Amino acid sequence: MNAIEDLARLIKKLPGMGEKSALRLSYHLLKTDPSFNKALGERIMSIQEKIHPCPICGSYTEEDICEYCTSPKRDRSQLMVVEESQDTVTINQAGIYNGLFHVLGGAINPLNGIGPDKLRIKELIERIEEGNFKEVIIATNPTEEGDTTAIYIKRLLEGKDISVTRLASGLPIGGDLGYADKTTLMRSLKSRIKI
Amino acid sequence: MNAIEDLARLIKKLPGMGEKSALRLSYHLLKTDPSFNKALGERIMSIQEKIHPCPICGSYTEEDICEYCTSPKRDRSQLMVVEESQDTVTINQAGIYNGLFHVLGGAINPLNGIGPDKLRIKELIERIEEGNFKEVIIATNPTEEGDTTAIYIKRLLEGKDISVTRLASGLPIGGDLGYADKTTLMRSLKSRIKI
Repeated sequence: MNAIEDLARLIKKLPGMGEKSALRLSYHLLKTDPSFNKALGERIMSIQEKIHPCPICGSYTEEDICEYCTSPKRDRSQLMVVEESQDTVTINQAGIYNGLFHVLGGAINPLNGIGPDKLRIKELIERIEEGNFKEVIIATNPTEEGDTTAIYIKRLLEGKDISVTRLASGLPIGGDLGYADKTTLMRSLKSRIKI
Repeated sequence: MNAIEDLARLIKKLPGMGEKSALRLSYHLLKTDPSFNKALGERIMSIQEKIHPCPICGSYTEEDICEYCTSPKRDRSQLMVVEESQDTVTINQAGIYNGLFHVLGGAINPLNGIGPDKLRIKELIERIEEGNFKEVIIATNPTEEGDTTAIYIKRLLEGKDISVTRLASGLPIGGDLGYADKTTLMRSLKSRIKI
């Protein structure tokens, strides 16, 4: 195996990379400015040293405590539960929510051996018991795993004086009914609202 | 800008990477085995030191002279002219050709400032004059730039006692007429063969 094939072999292990795209990227890296490869290589090697999960909410941060948890401007009565750290970025960039976050680190998936104990659910319950939250918004993905996780968390919170909600799912805005899959259609019918 | 955004900014400069896929890859690299990131980063930084163009044919190699040019098993009467080094890999893996190669390093593209002097065309003519080739197979891409380059090389070789051919273009085998674009259809009609 030569150096190009060796590089392509590693690139192919990244998500969304096939044989051809990995080889194409490798050839591209052969022709770029050497300073680019140096910068990219160094950042890939150092990213895990620079970034770590916030000990409170679990979102990635370079600080001791993340900017969500330390911000004095955020609403501390709302807690949004998401699967992954990048979900907090998506929600935050949309500018639609100003409360706190809790990152689970995935969703319950028994087939892949991911039980509740592999996720930051114990930390979530402790946070809720110690905090002054009025509402927990479950924003796990609208998938079977996300649904299971949402129901699991809802059950753990039953009996507590806190409102538990979940992001609505249904037809994407601007989408076309003809392109919606059956599950989305079913869910949008089931969750239909009065107008 | 934090370290994730900084890494995503560099990944986004790679071909085929959008904002979302670059961010997704960055988050992926946060969660992988650290030894993977070390291996990938090191290879990206060292690839240009390990690999260089063969001084004869221009294809990438780790040796002084590439394996095509040094192989005693290849037919030295045929020379295939390609745009990029990876094209030699594509052709070679297909197992359809056993002659020598010549890599131009691109195609003539006046709008992007790529004239014949930016490509390895002078080296091609010198090689042909000094070698014993019976046939030059032009395998530039079936694009406007590839066509221009093919015609330019053909003209330079006029008057020499050498056969100049070009890879046929037309409908891809196994493809569907309904999905073929107009240019491909036009070319396949123009190059139609007697059956």
